[in-house]
Amino acid sequence: MLTVALPKGELLKHSIRLLQTVGLDFSAFLDSGNRQLQITDTNGIAKGLLVRAQDVPVYVEYGQAQLGIVGYDVLREKKPQVAQLVDLRFGYCRMSVAVKQSSSYRSPLDLPAHGRVASKYVNCAREYFHSLDLPVEIVPLYGSVELGPITGMSEAIVDLVSTGRTLRENGLMEIATLYESTARLIAHPLSYRMNTDNLSDLIANVREAILAAV
Amino acid sequence: MLTVALPKGELLKHSIRLLQTVGLDFSAFLDSGNRQLQITDTNGIAKGLLVRAQDVPVYVEYGQAQLGIVGYDVLREKKPQVAQLVDLRFGYCRMSVAVKQSSSYRSPLDLPAHGRVASKYVNCAREYFHSLDLPVEIVPLYGSVELGPITGMSEAIVDLVSTGRTLRENGLMEIATLYESTARLIAHPLSYRMNTDNLSDLIANVREAILAAV
Repeated sequence: MLTVALPKGELLKHSIRLLQTVGLDFSAFLDSGNRQLQITDTNGIAKGLLVRAQDVPVYVEYGQAQLGIVGYDVLREKKPQVAQLVDLRFGYCRMSVAVKQSSSYRSPLDLPAHGRVASKYVNCAREYFHSLDLPVEIVPLYGSVELGPITGMSEAIVDLVSTGRTLRENGLMEIATLYESTARLIAHPLSYRMNTDNLSDLIANVREAILAAV
Repeated sequence: MLTVALPKGELLKHSIRLLQTVGLDFSAFLDSGNRQLQITDTNGIAKGLLVRAQDVPVYVEYGQAQLGIVGYDVLREKKPQVAQLVDLRFGYCRMSVAVKQSSSYRSPLDLPAHGRVASKYVNCAREYFHSLDLPVEIVPLYGSVELGPITGMSEAIVDLVSTGRTLRENGLMEIATLYESTARLIAHPLSYRMNTDNLSDLIANVREAILAAV
């Protein structure tokens, strides 16, 4: 049976709504009482796996799920071996460099050489500053990255921004955007090539649903 | 002013209670309405920084906090450059290898060579299997590691176990323990050596409080 890996958090509701339009009903994951991480859709066509956003590409890469939905930010950071099939056009956000409003930095190139940049996205941050030929020290954090500049531990952060509210509330401002991110449909490469469980029809239906929604 | 980094989650309550016994009151962090990540203790002696457990040693290593409380599991996985001062004797748990109860594995050495082991603690897992001279593939996950064996993605997991309830509920069983973990008091090495803000008195008081509690 086909298995679809779904991301906990921000993208879940929209992912489930999209899959409903192509005949897969995983809305049980949205029940507040639900503790199950694996369910079969109400039509008995596919299994759904509810995992952390960062784990979605892992299950798809290892073929435990043939399909998955995950933000482009995760794909860009982890570079998993998965087929990136459809831009689902929801979950918009951007990866940005931000600094204290009260600082004098208005561009990444204003940052001091060998300054510190805190981020959960260490690979993206490292690549970006490397592309600018600006040597910085990347400080890996797991949460509340905005505390980096606030406590004085780092001059800047690289983080995902959607409305910008968290930044504003913490006296920070964006000074550059690395890239924009949306949710993506990904597939296990071999299952995709072999068209396991008639994957290609399902993917075509998702593509159509996305085009119809524009 | 002295800054203490405190871990969100499991260890927070006990950490705050311990610091109260040595005159630092950060109980405001426990107010359900609290959104502040930085507060000054009610006696005005020190600042508290509320961060993810994995980020505590980062703030302490960079000297943004002179003291921190964090589980030994995090120290063992990340190997930060901090001074490990006191075993605080709460937050007991163990890092274990677990497999499906229905499998035939009863020891890590029963696992197939080049089998897969899912873990959030990739460094600990890698070191352990290396020490057994058993080549395995470590699959890095961020959450719900028990799904590894359940979905068939991995033969085993390496994860933190406290009561063992999650394992039992998921049909898994422990077959080996890598090490035991408790909360630790850590310090920024330079601040500790320089005795900044009279750190050594505070540390001595914590040591006494721990001994008195036995």
